[in-house]
Amino acid sequence: MTKQERGTRTRHMLIRSAAEVFEQHGYERTRLADVSAHAGVSTGALHFHFKSKAALADAVESAASRSLHHAASSVGRHPVSALQTLTDISHIFALLLDRDVVVRAGVQLGCDTVRDPTLNFHREWQDCVRRLLDRAAAEGSLADDVSQQDVTTTVVGATMGFLSMRREGGEWLTHRSLTGFWRLLLPRVATPPLLGSLAPEGTRSVAGAFPSTARTVPERQPQ
Amino acid sequence: MTKQERGTRTRHMLIRSAAEVFEQHGYERTRLADVSAHAGVSTGALHFHFKSKAALADAVESAASRSLHHAASSVGRHPVSALQTLTDISHIFALLLDRDVVVRAGVQLGCDTVRDPTLNFHREWQDCVRRLLDRAAAEGSLADDVSQQDVTTTVVGATMGFLSMRREGGEWLTHRSLTGFWRLLLPRVATPPLLGSLAPEGTRSVAGAFPSTARTVPERQPQ
Repeated sequence: MTKQERGTRTRHMLIRSAAEVFEQHGYERTRLADVSAHAGVSTGALHFHFKSKAALADAVESAASRSLHHAASSVGRHPVSALQTLTDISHIFALLLDRDVVVRAGVQLGCDTVRDPTLNFHREWQDCVRRLLDRAAAEGSLADDVSQQDVTTTVVGATMGFLSMRREGGEWLTHRSLTGFWRLLLPRVATPPLLGSLAPEGTRSVAGAFPSTARTVPERQPQ
Repeated sequence: MTKQERGTRTRHMLIRSAAEVFEQHGYERTRLADVSAHAGVSTGALHFHFKSKAALADAVESAASRSLHHAASSVGRHPVSALQTLTDISHIFALLLDRDVVVRAGVQLGCDTVRDPTLNFHREWQDCVRRLLDRAAAEGSLADDVSQQDVTTTVVGATMGFLSMRREGGEWLTHRSLTGFWRLLLPRVATPPLLGSLAPEGTRSVAGAFPSTARTVPERQPQ
């Protein structure tokens, strides 16, 4: 392993350690010393990679953002209807948020009012939902009597609700809850000819896309 | 005004002041001295009514809980279908959360992981949704092909999402968003004969019930 590879690996490990500490204590109560202790490195080693707590939080947000975009674009590559893509992306985001502490901490940091976050998950997700509903409308796959605005409000509201209730420890942002949500919503939103081909539980692209995105930030390893 | 009435009024004023401080700074960062300064009373006067910060938080939660129950039972008295009652209660809760700082702070304190809260809004709301859907099923007003569990998940998810996004400063927990949500959902959930009589924007009972509940905790007044 070259020096550069070791540096990149250490940086990723520090980002994951920081995410674990940020998730547990929140941005404000986290000290850089907590992160270095948790990562098992000296404060000097941590400082070599990240000059401040804000720089570390920015790096966590950036890593989370990359994972989310990578996952969304993996799903988007498959040639299915826009409504199925939307369903699949919601499932893949739920999987990422469940399994990847960096994604969870990045999204949580983005809600923080103390600093100026670089990732606004809620805004980006809302834009993504809007774009996909525009595409669904262009495809002619939205039922005549539904308003795109109402669908956006409902999809963003419900998914952000599942996310907020996940923090309370409940079983909310799960494949099962999301499947129930889409099972209820899709027959109202999609035109009858499309409906039969839609899978509220997600298509194979969800399962296919996830393994690669889960590895964008490697697990913490001993130094 | 008797001594007892003055005492009650002061207690209500302190609860409102505490709610304002808790909402702004969160439970953990709030000190009793902040509340007494904000209320314009001495720390001794505050201590006469509330022995600790936890007692003050409990009082805010209890007042919020009373307001929410009072509002829900006002709506429940009107002889409309269970689905309309559910729609109306969601609107009245949104109004309360928008207008009453004690309700907002009480609900927020209930999400706090630092102490053991007495109000769990999310749990109580979920129970309320479940009960009303059981009633709707008993009335025969639920469409055959929807699962009550999916409706509960979607209603609780979306409304809790609107609530969590309200904290980010967006226009989410509003009459407009909720009306859009119900406009989308009710045609999927209700049987066709009932649908024509349902008002996604809420019935007159929403407007009728709110003024009385808004006054359960009086505005802060000078001592």
